[in-house]
Amino acid sequence: MPNHWVHHPIDTPAVLVHQEILQKNIHDMAVFAKTYHLALRPHIKTHKIPEIARMQLAAGAVGVTTAKLGEAEVMAAHGITDILIAYPIIGKEKLKRLEELRKIAKVMTVVDGREQALELSQYANERNLQFEVLMEMDSGLRRCGVLPGQDALALYRELAELPGIRLQGIMTHAGHAYGATGIDQVREIALQEGTIMVETAQLLREADLAAPEVSVGSTPTVRISGQVEGVTEIRPGNYVFNDLTQIRLGVATQDQCALRVATRIVSKPAEDRFIIDAGAKTFALDQGAHGTTGVSGYGRVVGHPECTIARLSEEHGIVIVQGATKLQVGDIIEIIPNHSCPVANLTNEVHVVSRGVVSAVWKVAARGKTS
Amino acid sequence: MPNHWVHHPIDTPAVLVHQEILQKNIHDMAVFAKTYHLALRPHIKTHKIPEIARMQLAAGAVGVTTAKLGEAEVMAAHGITDILIAYPIIGKEKLKRLEELRKIAKVMTVVDGREQALELSQYANERNLQFEVLMEMDSGLRRCGVLPGQDALALYRELAELPGIRLQGIMTHAGHAYGATGIDQVREIALQEGTIMVETAQLLREADLAAPEVSVGSTPTVRISGQVEGVTEIRPGNYVFNDLTQIRLGVATQDQCALRVATRIVSKPAEDRFIIDAGAKTFALDQGAHGTTGVSGYGRVVGHPECTIARLSEEHGIVIVQGATKLQVGDIIEIIPNHSCPVANLTNEVHVVSRGVVSAVWKVAARGKTS
Repeated sequence: MPNHWVHHPIDTPAVLVHQEILQKNIHDMAVFAKTYHLALRPHIKTHKIPEIARMQLAAGAVGVTTAKLGEAEVMAAHGITDILIAYPIIGKEKLKRLEELRKIAKVMTVVDGREQALELSQYANERNLQFEVLMEMDSGLRRCGVLPGQDALALYRELAELPGIRLQGIMTHAGHAYGATGIDQVREIALQEGTIMVETAQLLREADLAAPEVSVGSTPTVRISGQVEGVTEIRPGNYVFNDLTQIRLGVATQDQCALRVATRIVSKPAEDRFIIDAGAKTFALDQGAHGTTGVSGYGRVVGHPECTIARLSEEHGIVIVQGATKLQVGDIIEIIPNHSCPVANLTNEVHVVSRGVVSAVWKVAARGKTS
Repeated sequence: MPNHWVHHPIDTPAVLVHQEILQKNIHDMAVFAKTYHLALRPHIKTHKIPEIARMQLAAGAVGVTTAKLGEAEVMAAHGITDILIAYPIIGKEKLKRLEELRKIAKVMTVVDGREQALELSQYANERNLQFEVLMEMDSGLRRCGVLPGQDALALYRELAELPGIRLQGIMTHAGHAYGATGIDQVREIALQEGTIMVETAQLLREADLAAPEVSVGSTPTVRISGQVEGVTEIRPGNYVFNDLTQIRLGVATQDQCALRVATRIVSKPAEDRFIIDAGAKTFALDQGAHGTTGVSGYGRVVGHPECTIARLSEEHGIVIVQGATKLQVGDIIEIIPNHSCPVANLTNEVHVVSRGVVSAVWKVAARGKTS
């Protein structure tokens, strides 16, 4: 891999997506899903780009997952018609939007508590609708989700009896894998993720409750948890781009990272300090997903191990240089970010590169759709 | 101050701007500038909203400061015609854009090294143009900027001799004040900021070099450094909104914070844990400007000291509740963020509130204009 994907000057900062690496990442995950007879429902919150969602569907995905209703609305407006919104829907404003969205797409949402379920049920029942839902499980992230065992059984039973709701099974996101020390701990978490889900599904079925879908997520864990017998669906997101966090976890190599930031050295105010024209407004302040802090610095300068991105203010990256460097003011460098998802969320568009040139510019159509 | 600015349900998360507090913050800074005979050139990177820039100009600002050329282009397109781009301009692509921008607005940029200056000079000279520039000084942030004393004198002398460049003086940003322990240290940094700049200007004038502008910035320091005799211009940005960081530094009170995030409790998966529908995609991961980590948690839940925003993933805020609370799933809470600038940068629009209702929606027109 050369240090530079783009071989001509480019207005910086620019978020680059490598077309061939992207295509290979999408292909490889589709092959994995096919091999293990899993439905692949990629999470589009990583890219938020309809063009990439379409590539994922073309490779065999059954539909997409979105983080919010707003992202789902954008995907549906771009012709994607099978969507899981992996977030509880609460409040009249959102229920109305959900009702509208159902007119143009098959939509499923999640529930992890009775308050949400009662509101959904009442709204649907009054309008003679049926909302399809998955019950969200907590497999260790301690964010949303019902705990496995009796808690899960009790809530699922309650949900199953509510009018206006059609329960489709269970889902979880083992995001705590992002805080793992390395691949061994990732495997352990992944195995637990799959096992918890399959055992819970078993518990539900023993109580004569239908739970056809057993859906797991997360790029680090999915190639392990997806192999646990009884899991039916996987929802990885980050794999399309990968990033330094996936490298740190042992889940991807640098050659599998499809997203970089091209940035320019704009100042050299001291012998050991460069300033680049990308800061927290480009890289975000992530040192790993879910607030984990597993990597040091704010990205890897490709081909320049002498450089550490030590600090970020909003529009400045402060790069500390240790030892000799050939870099000088005006040079463009390419950086693999710690976490590619917020990078895509901060930019209005990405530059698609292929064979050294920018072949397309894609709008990040669902960026900022947090509502 | 009531716990809620908006007294009716609102689709969440929503970034709220309180019209009267905003207006008062703008007024107060304008009065300060007038009292001390300072030009006020507010930094619009905090809000990125033409409507607010116009309010600042109406209150007496001489023009605006922007972080990047892209922000300046948006402001100029909205009729704002006196702009300082507080960033070095490097590369042919940007020089062309700068040349275009000069046709519709009076534009000034900054330089802190000879490489940038030579490129600007050559480009301007070939086209028979004059670019107005300020020389950027390092008053302690250790980011961009020339060190005061002989370094400053030598570079300024060199710049003064270049064709195509019209030197207008010096500027600095004492952003290291954001890392201060409290108001006493802020005052110390501010006094140093003003003194360094005035002494440097004196050094230049003793060498028969014209330096009409002596421009300082930063909301925490500006009311002190602006009073140093010889400073001519102030460029505060954050003061329009303020945030928890300004409260921590002793520079603003909660009643002076004009920006909040309205977010909804969407889940209560454990007795001591709420999940809100705003995460790092709304609040960013800032614990203070310039990567400082002065505040704990990710925002203040107004009226609910029992709540701590302990973790953020992209779309989830994990709130830990200590002791009793009346809050429940479905409730909307309002949160003062740690750092208001990235919050405005992440949202596509802000909801202006006045007397309990949303009176306008303003587009964050210059958001994401990092190039």
